[in-house]
Amino acid sequence: MIIVMRSDATESQVKNVIDTIDKLGFKSHLSKGEETTIIGVIGDERRVDASHFQLLPAVERVIPILKPYKLASRDFRKQDTVIRINGTNIGGTFFCVMAGPCAVESYEQTLSIAKKVKAAGASVLRGGAFKPRTSPYSFQGLGKEGLQILLSAKKETGLSIVTEVMAEDDIPIVSEVADIIQVGARNMQNFSLLDKLGRQKKPVLLKRGMMSTVEELLLSAEYILTRGNSSVILCERGIRTFERSTRNTLDISAVPVVKRFSHLPIIIDPSHAAGMSEYVMSLAIAGAAVGADGLIIEVHNQPEDALCDGQQSITPDRFAELMREVNGIVKIVGKNLN
Amino acid sequence: MIIVMRSDATESQVKNVIDTIDKLGFKSHLSKGEETTIIGVIGDERRVDASHFQLLPAVERVIPILKPYKLASRDFRKQDTVIRINGTNIGGTFFCVMAGPCAVESYEQTLSIAKKVKAAGASVLRGGAFKPRTSPYSFQGLGKEGLQILLSAKKETGLSIVTEVMAEDDIPIVSEVADIIQVGARNMQNFSLLDKLGRQKKPVLLKRGMMSTVEELLLSAEYILTRGNSSVILCERGIRTFERSTRNTLDISAVPVVKRFSHLPIIIDPSHAAGMSEYVMSLAIAGAAVGADGLIIEVHNQPEDALCDGQQSITPDRFAELMREVNGIVKIVGKNLN
Amino acid sequence: MIIVMRSDATESQVKNVIDTIDKLGFKSHLSKGEETTIIGVIGDERRVDASHFQLLPAVERVIPILKPYKLASRDFRKQDTVIRINGTNIGGTFFCVMAGPCAVESYEQTLSIAKKVKAAGASVLRGGAFKPRTSPYSFQGLGKEGLQILLSAKKETGLSIVTEVMAEDDIPIVSEVADIIQVGARNMQNFSLLDKLGRQKKPVLLKRGMMSTVEELLLSAEYILTRGNSSVILCERGIRTFERSTRNTLDISAVPVVKRFSHLPIIIDPSHAAGMSEYVMSLAIAGAAVGADGLIIEVHNQPEDALCDGQQSITPDRFAELMREVNGIVKIVGKNLN
Amino acid sequence: MIIVMRSDATESQVKNVIDTIDKLGFKSHLSKGEETTIIGVIGDERRVDASHFQLLPAVERVIPILKPYKLASRDFRKQDTVIRINGTNIGGTFFCVMAGPCAVESYEQTLSIAKKVKAAGASVLRGGAFKPRTSPYSFQGLGKEGLQILLSAKKETGLSIVTEVMAEDDIPIVSEVADIIQVGARNMQNFSLLDKLGRQKKPVLLKRGMMSTVEELLLSAEYILTRGNSSVILCERGIRTFERSTRNTLDISAVPVVKRFSHLPIIIDPSHAAGMSEYVMSLAIAGAAVGADGLIIEVHNQPEDALCDGQQSITPDRFAELMREVNGIVKIVGKNLN
Repeated sequence: MIIVMRSDATESQVKNVIDTIDKLGFKSHLSKGEETTIIGVIGDERRVDASHFQLLPAVERVIPILKPYKLASRDFRKQDTVIRINGTNIGGTFFCVMAGPCAVESYEQTLSIAKKVKAAGASVLRGGAFKPRTSPYSFQGLGKEGLQILLSAKKETGLSIVTEVMAEDDIPIVSEVADIIQVGARNMQNFSLLDKLGRQKKPVLLKRGMMSTVEELLLSAEYILTRGNSSVILCERGIRTFERSTRNTLDISAVPVVKRFSHLPIIIDPSHAAGMSEYVMSLAIAGAAVGADGLIIEVHNQPEDALCDGQQSITPDRFAELMREVNGIVKIVGKNLN
Repeated sequence: MIIVMRSDATESQVKNVIDTIDKLGFKSHLSKGEETTIIGVIGDERRVDASHFQLLPAVERVIPILKPYKLASRDFRKQDTVIRINGTNIGGTFFCVMAGPCAVESYEQTLSIAKKVKAAGASVLRGGAFKPRTSPYSFQGLGKEGLQILLSAKKETGLSIVTEVMAEDDIPIVSEVADIIQVGARNMQNFSLLDKLGRQKKPVLLKRGMMSTVEELLLSAEYILTRGNSSVILCERGIRTFERSTRNTLDISAVPVVKRFSHLPIIIDPSHAAGMSEYVMSLAIAGAAVGADGLIIEVHNQPEDALCDGQQSITPDRFAELMREVNGIVKIVGKNLN
Repeated sequence: MIIVMRSDATESQVKNVIDTIDKLGFKSHLSKGEETTIIGVIGDERRVDASHFQLLPAVERVIPILKPYKLASRDFRKQDTVIRINGTNIGGTFFCVMAGPCAVESYEQTLSIAKKVKAAGASVLRGGAFKPRTSPYSFQGLGKEGLQILLSAKKETGLSIVTEVMAEDDIPIVSEVADIIQVGARNMQNFSLLDKLGRQKKPVLLKRGMMSTVEELLLSAEYILTRGNSSVILCERGIRTFERSTRNTLDISAVPVVKRFSHLPIIIDPSHAAGMSEYVMSLAIAGAAVGADGLIIEVHNQPEDALCDGQQSITPDRFAELMREVNGIVKIVGKNLN
Repeated sequence: MIIVMRSDATESQVKNVIDTIDKLGFKSHLSKGEETTIIGVIGDERRVDASHFQLLPAVERVIPILKPYKLASRDFRKQDTVIRINGTNIGGTFFCVMAGPCAVESYEQTLSIAKKVKAAGASVLRGGAFKPRTSPYSFQGLGKEGLQILLSAKKETGLSIVTEVMAEDDIPIVSEVADIIQVGARNMQNFSLLDKLGRQKKPVLLKRGMMSTVEELLLSAEYILTRGNSSVILCERGIRTFERSTRNTLDISAVPVVKRFSHLPIIIDPSHAAGMSEYVMSLAIAGAAVGADGLIIEVHNQPEDALCDGQQSITPDRFAELMREVNGIVKIVGKNLN
């Protein structure tokens, strides 16, 4: 941590800061410049709040130096984390595609889509039983019945299942069905939920909040990791910006940024980023090219009748086409499709 | 809902849209322009997803016309909602100030601050027992012990209590202490939590998510209202933008916007918006001037030793000064301080 | 400037950075922490690009310490700058209101509005002759004819004139009429134009770009100041965010932030921020309360027939009402209306 | 244009709107819904401001239906525009790479880089002679001397030249050297400059403002097109968001969005988007994969000594590596490298 003093700081104000640093068990390091005095705080800054120093007299600002996350960092673990689920690998040199409907609507719908996405090359089936919806008047998902349908589809097709949990109390029943438990973008900073998911064993797919920084995404992952669950898959699904020609703005740079600072796998959700089916293919290809560890894509046999997010769902035929393109790209960037 | 057809839409594609409208139980209304054809959907559009039409062949886009919330709207209830808590009124012509520490740290700290903010004119004591923190390494609050301290401070001072709930399972114990239950910005779209809070009777202080539009804030209020709890107080606490000289950007316009479209009271939190104590006073005054129904302000007797958010806390003396200024402003804009 | 080394930096990489600092004529200051090594660069960092260090091997990041502007800073000049125009003061303890139509449309329109805003208490007449419009199909202003109309209105009413210049070549003719030359938000970083305006004497009203930080605004002011023109008035007119219920988001905190870091006056433009006339009054009052040095407001006698921005213009009657409220607020915050 | 009436609009208020529509020479179309009345405006809405209707009594809001640009639209021209410069094609099935230093620093530097980027496959040399810099203290470019150096480099290597113009008065001298004239992001809405560039013949590379929507980018292109210059190349170079781990956020979706709504070519600038050289390669590959018509990349032989933007420049060796990867991607998505 670096403490920058105001240009008019007195000797005794500087001394006061140094004394406070000592009192908190850190070492200090003084550096006088031409216009300003700077004091370094030496020690593990994660265990102290910047405000302890910010509020001392004549302090201009406090600059954190260390990344605030530890277990999620590349410094903590040099090699890529690879998460293995029923024979599918996520992370490292592997490329994993998850696909399926936004919401589980019926057994027939789910099974039909599941078979088709499997045939096209997906290894994980997505589908929401509990649906977080902005409006209380929208379809909220089939709940437990939806989970049963996913379980049947899993048995029939052998696909692994990723599905969302919204309430802490639902973790046990979701765990019975899900191979990967999804935390939605709106719950990325539901710390109670993260705490509970860190205390169970199933891998977690953690979606980036639409207005969360990459650093905050890694801090949310850190919540899960510190509780003992080391299987976290990150997901970039678009952030909220001023641009409105797409539903969100896919922050494709998040992939190389995460790869630099963390060992955790990261996949791309082009469906929620685009919000319109016609852009999904281009963004999926870009996601494969940029070095992501996989994709999660909404596929619906009849998008125009979908109970949720039909606008951004592609048909199974289109998905098969997408998989052919993605396959070519993945090879060029040195990955292997699961 | 308005459906805009692509300029090259054929007669039969237009007919198909009209048939779909009929099938879903709405009436249609056709309007042919020079460059484009537009079809109106007549009926309560809240019960149908735009995507049903968006995905039909040759549809360019679908424009919702009605506000997506109903119970929260000014159309539903013309007069301002006034919420009465232990003799304090929130909404209408009343102005209510809530103040206290970010986190409850000890009985002495809490009581000392409580007495001072009461003397200066606050009518509600704020203080967090459960603290949502971005980093798992930060102080997470005293939990149940914090609630007990708040209860004692309430008994000693007669101030009402507002405190945050993070987990659904904690609602009962928080309810025993809180006169107003706070939903933090990061939980504004934790729909499970909103659902539960809608099914109990205590008033809810709903903070706007840093990534949420005013419309989404009103939709989250709608979740609570539709479950039967009509006592919702909204809170603007700054949104996330590109500007970094303040922690968040106080969206002061949200006050007149909410006043236009909703009957619910709205207060301003200048502390979280500014993120720095030196800006709190100006923003509090601006908030009173713009027509808000109150303020919620972080006050700490020793901000430099605060366990949480000390940077943005003001001292009791400064708070007393702020109250004097606010008092003058409130009268000019035609409100009465509780 | 602070250089943070990667945690795996070698001795010789650290030495290389220190040598580079020396070579560029600065002094270095080494500080070894537990996890990382930090090197301070001592000297006037404004004269070197961070990238010189950023690209050296094993450098993690470079953190600037000094504010990048100098003449615009509060450190350079402690007391508030007050700009005096035809007997009107802008800055310090004075409050100045500028009002008038978005665009000059005709002599009658302009004069009629000018008389009314003067009667209500405005001291500067605003009105665009050259209009920057997003679309080439929108009304682009009357140009030179508009300037003549402004000149006549000035003679008739005695009001000072503020009007926008869009092209460098128009500075001479605009100067003949304008007492204050306006730089529009879209030209805030038109450095050629700023350069030319710095080389003439008329005060400049510099509007903040809709996606520019306060720091960038002050750097654009610095362009003008370094060329010799010390009369710069800043203007906050709303920034672009994800929120769409107002045209822009008024960043009201910019006022205390500018007051802290700069001596230059800053006024608020509630009309462009709101984009809708019904919010202008509340935002104007909030702007007066937050400590701004003035307001610039769009007033039109027949907003529904305005050739430009009618949506956000208020009528002269409404403006008179606004002035009464603002007057009360201004006194409370210790300013005097010009 | 669609006019939505307030729910409490009276018959005579509706009639008033219809009369106004008639008076302005449009046809109206009335549609009464259950909760609201909607009135369609039939005719070319580009020639009327929404505010004419917005301000009529009882109007809730006005929704534009038509795209505000015409010549830039895919409706106006179905097939892709291909711009041919000295044998290089930009647009359609062609992929064009522009590369070179941020700023022209010397003849040796420029020529050395030019030869290397040509050898690696670039067909256009970039390099700034006039540099728009946020701070007045930063290197502002060599000006005319820089143009002469570019001319020499062009003669020696045969590469085409793209370079920026900042001031209208410089268009003639820039035109003598440049094959493509660049408009920087900060000047995207400098309408005076766009006007002048529309009245000359050289192709224009129009960079998207960091604060501009895709629609505004197309409207700025429309300024140039309406003046008679049909050779406009768009460039996505990152937008400003809350995320700070990259300098800007590359809005990669802008490519498919532009491809859908416009016939103009669009290229990607990964250097300015990333702001850090280590992310340039991934973003360049993603840009090629998403379907862009080319790339513009900052290459410097000694990035650590660059006078401008060294942080985001890659070395010629790294550029050669990038070209090999891009080449593979381009083929998969059906394009040909020039």
